[in-house]
Amino acid sequence: MKKVAIIGVGHVGSTLAYTLISRNIVDELILFDTKEEQLLSEYNDLFDGQVDRDNYVKLIKPTIEELADTDVIVFSAGDISIFRNNADRFAELELTNGIVKEWAPKIKASGFKGILVNITNPCDAVTQRLQELTGFPKERVFGTGTTLDSARMKHAVSEKFNVHPSSVEGYVLGEHGDSQFVAWSSVRIGGIPITEMLSEKELDDLESVARDGGWITMKGKGYTSFGIANQGALVVEAVLNNNQRILPVSSFDTAAQCYVGHPAQVSCDGIVKDFQLELTESEQQKWKKTIDTIKYMHSTAN
Amino acid sequence: MKKVAIIGVGHVGSTLAYTLISRNIVDELILFDTKEEQLLSEYNDLFDGQVDRDNYVKLIKPTIEELADTDVIVFSAGDISIFRNNADRFAELELTNGIVKEWAPKIKASGFKGILVNITNPCDAVTQRLQELTGFPKERVFGTGTTLDSARMKHAVSEKFNVHPSSVEGYVLGEHGDSQFVAWSSVRIGGIPITEMLSEKELDDLESVARDGGWITMKGKGYTSFGIANQGALVVEAVLNNNQRILPVSSFDTAAQCYVGHPAQVSCDGIVKDFQLELTESEQQKWKKTIDTIKYMHSTAN
Amino acid sequence: MKKVAIIGVGHVGSTLAYTLISRNIVDELILFDTKEEQLLSEYNDLFDGQVDRDNYVKLIKPTIEELADTDVIVFSAGDISIFRNNADRFAELELTNGIVKEWAPKIKASGFKGILVNITNPCDAVTQRLQELTGFPKERVFGTGTTLDSARMKHAVSEKFNVHPSSVEGYVLGEHGDSQFVAWSSVRIGGIPITEMLSEKELDDLESVARDGGWITMKGKGYTSFGIANQGALVVEAVLNNNQRILPVSSFDTAAQCYVGHPAQVSCDGIVKDFQLELTESEQQKWKKTIDTIKYMHSTAN
Amino acid sequence: MKKVAIIGVGHVGSTLAYTLISRNIVDELILFDTKEEQLLSEYNDLFDGQVDRDNYVKLIKPTIEELADTDVIVFSAGDISIFRNNADRFAELELTNGIVKEWAPKIKASGFKGILVNITNPCDAVTQRLQELTGFPKERVFGTGTTLDSARMKHAVSEKFNVHPSSVEGYVLGEHGDSQFVAWSSVRIGGIPITEMLSEKELDDLESVARDGGWITMKGKGYTSFGIANQGALVVEAVLNNNQRILPVSSFDTAAQCYVGHPAQVSCDGIVKDFQLELTESEQQKWKKTIDTIKYMHSTAN
Repeated sequence: MKKVAIIGVGHVGSTLAYTLISRNIVDELILFDTKEEQLLSEYNDLFDGQVDRDNYVKLIKPTIEELADTDVIVFSAGDISIFRNNADRFAELELTNGIVKEWAPKIKASGFKGILVNITNPCDAVTQRLQELTGFPKERVFGTGTTLDSARMKHAVSEKFNVHPSSVEGYVLGEHGDSQFVAWSSVRIGGIPITEMLSEKELDDLESVARDGGWITMKGKGYTSFGIANQGALVVEAVLNNNQRILPVSSFDTAAQCYVGHPAQVSCDGIVKDFQLELTESEQQKWKKTIDTIKYMHSTAN
Repeated sequence: MKKVAIIGVGHVGSTLAYTLISRNIVDELILFDTKEEQLLSEYNDLFDGQVDRDNYVKLIKPTIEELADTDVIVFSAGDISIFRNNADRFAELELTNGIVKEWAPKIKASGFKGILVNITNPCDAVTQRLQELTGFPKERVFGTGTTLDSARMKHAVSEKFNVHPSSVEGYVLGEHGDSQFVAWSSVRIGGIPITEMLSEKELDDLESVARDGGWITMKGKGYTSFGIANQGALVVEAVLNNNQRILPVSSFDTAAQCYVGHPAQVSCDGIVKDFQLELTESEQQKWKKTIDTIKYMHSTAN
Repeated sequence: MKKVAIIGVGHVGSTLAYTLISRNIVDELILFDTKEEQLLSEYNDLFDGQVDRDNYVKLIKPTIEELADTDVIVFSAGDISIFRNNADRFAELELTNGIVKEWAPKIKASGFKGILVNITNPCDAVTQRLQELTGFPKERVFGTGTTLDSARMKHAVSEKFNVHPSSVEGYVLGEHGDSQFVAWSSVRIGGIPITEMLSEKELDDLESVARDGGWITMKGKGYTSFGIANQGALVVEAVLNNNQRILPVSSFDTAAQCYVGHPAQVSCDGIVKDFQLELTESEQQKWKKTIDTIKYMHSTAN
Repeated sequence: MKKVAIIGVGHVGSTLAYTLISRNIVDELILFDTKEEQLLSEYNDLFDGQVDRDNYVKLIKPTIEELADTDVIVFSAGDISIFRNNADRFAELELTNGIVKEWAPKIKASGFKGILVNITNPCDAVTQRLQELTGFPKERVFGTGTTLDSARMKHAVSEKFNVHPSSVEGYVLGEHGDSQFVAWSSVRIGGIPITEMLSEKELDDLESVARDGGWITMKGKGYTSFGIANQGALVVEAVLNNNQRILPVSSFDTAAQCYVGHPAQVSCDGIVKDFQLELTESEQQKWKKTIDTIKYMHSTAN
């Protein structure tokens, strides 16, 4: 039985739950939220949402005890309204940090032996806090990192070249936040480096398009849901299927000594290995800058 | 290419769009909404939501001309807040009726030759108005009807007997609204009539549980999305795959002379045939009552 | 991790393996066969058959030790050529019985704690032998029974009425062999009993069409694969997903004191409950006759 | 409605049909074969193989007229036994050429306006003959080319590095036959060039493993089916979904003036664009050699 718990079922958590059910990724699902009526509502709607289909996901009542044999916990607690109004990841961190401090000991005490995947923002700093406060081995805690940012880059490239987004390879690296950057040296379309097809100016413009993606979504409906739920589902599936997929999650980088989005191999035991891309000089500078940003942000949480 | 347009991308419309993409049901999708920023937001998030997957749905900019060769239009316009605050389907109809009067001539003028599926509430009356105002053949216009209500009945039965919801057969008939009823005489579990397993009292209680399902969802998060998106997707898939599935959609009943939720066979040409269940006497009375309710509601729209 | 072993990878076993991989039903797969070169060939082709897709099924080398933590063993050993040349289930049983006697102690000794699903023919007798020789609890051993026969009945009804096969409800009961029969009293299309739509003569003719289905397939290509692989996959999925689906598998009938195809609820613990349909008098006679046939066949195996 | 015809339903054609049905890629399927009993057998087994699932593929009787509005024709006619006994692609070509000469005028006369995908070997030469004899635009005719060979390379790399095969990027180029080669300069794992991880000797060994894959499969069961069916299905899906995926199909190379396996973008209109990888010098020599082989083989067909 594949058992997943989602802590925090706002728009992100509930859409992720629906995606996990809809794509037959889980067998058992547990949802936690402080808003009890809303939680009941999501449980009910999610059950309705699976009738007349082949699979049947058991929706289990939320108790801490259930976490003991849960395979994956997704941490998606938080309050997007803080961010929406401020667009300030520091203010967001302050709020989130409180929630992390509340949840980490509970998760630890439950006897949970699985993989902890963080979505809550600021993703890298919160992931690190979760690891520190649970004391779980670093490979068993990671965040969705720049998976969504890489998807947005593929979205932008795909539209510019009118190719399937999955035929675009490459990564956005760094913070899931403003200091991230596209590692254009890693981007290929049908095996051809994009740097041979576009000028530096064109690449810069394309990076802006990719980066603005999230803001357009956020501005229009006040939150983002489908993009992050899709990436969250791919990450959870990689763990549950033990599929050794290489994804730009936020995993612990030994050299940088912090959690940061970069390619890492995901298995049922968490992160197997991380990959250090050969970066150009200017990309290396961006990498240093984003590492500094993440570490500074992390240092403000306590 | 399978091309679907969704008119109205609030919670229901956007979750339906995500479901159609997520389950590989469509190839091309067009979304319409009066709120431009929100529409752009959904377009963007839905594109992000399909990166790194096999299929690639083309998201087409909304113009009336695009409807000419669209296979299915889903009508999910409306404003749930009206209903949420009043729980009054008449007030809801008044608002919706205006939207229908605005959209019906546009759809007609576009040269649309496909199937028009209505989700907007009050479902049966609005479906009929859409058919009348477009002048399309009755078999090419229908509503989601009691598909969601039947799903909620299967949800309740499934939980009571701890069986897979798809192993529960049977239908909720009538209005997608308060006057609907479970045709218990049609309900079987593993081939055994439920009427042989439960007393009348127990069936009444179970019907209440099923009926309350929607309210629990609505009350908790202010709208319903996953349950209706799942049924909408199944209906759209039945049309696009021409799969001759029998579903309790709201189709025109010749005897009753109105649209009402009851089993009908769905194909790429719309409704092929509707099925009249053999009802018990008390069920027949409920059927008459629900027909009266629908016709009265419809008569108030103009 | 969902781990399945298939014992015997001829056309049925290998097509089932491909189906389990292709539909993302398993995470780990182990294949056993006495023909070593052919086994290696299937391992290789099955791996090739999953490249460029999302999931990644680990194909594990076959050792008895691996069975200890396997969730489902599918038994599909045998030699169809015996049957093809004779169409004699007794001759087939003699051969199969030898294979069962060889495998049952190995499975038992492995420490296997999962569910044993038998496909090998004659299905009902072989299933019973497997249960007897392993000594596993009866609910943890069952056969595909009349799942394929019920599918063929739905195929025939679906073609006659031009409806989706999933909109046909009902069961074929009894032996997965000549003495089986369609329980027409259980068959409904869109909630309407088929007995109200067709005469007895028409039902007889339709039953012949359904029954001949298997022979047409067998005669043309010398084996059947897709139909049985589909049902095998649905049964395996029901166990792995613990989905409580009611399927006409061959489970132990306490009254009849033998394994026989009839509706039963399938879970991760095997058979939860079996369902006794209310049969007409003539169906009851057919039921007695098919039970006698199965018991006589079983009695010849030793 | 997505309509596909398969000409030749031996192991490859029938497994492809099953895959298209099993993964919900088509709505209507037509199968052609000269062996009538076997054809009927496959029709029957494929129908059985889809019962109790969501989608319902209409299996249409084979008439040339049906090709007029078919979206994709897959050409998989031929007789593998010729090849199996000789392992001689020239002998195979002689036989196949006769079948092509028989079918090309029929396809042309049918008024077929879709995409013609060839699987029959020798793939590149046969694809070119099909294009020449039908007179269809070159972009509307292509072969599965080195899609399966690239998959086998990913299979080998995936096993060596224990990563998900989809996390391996890169291509096998050239003939779908002995003169093909892995363009190691295009191969990356998690963004890291494989040439930085393995020595030339190790790459050579790995190429041998990949290349031998097909022979191991062929030797063990006398044919290959799952690997090629998977790639055939991905190609057909790319056309039907118009998904602009870049795949190493055998498309016409203007510089080389022949069909040859190399990355090309696939849409509902066939090949949109082909991609010329930057090859190393030694790869360029292999490219020339494989082009020569393909052209010589093609020149022998008449």
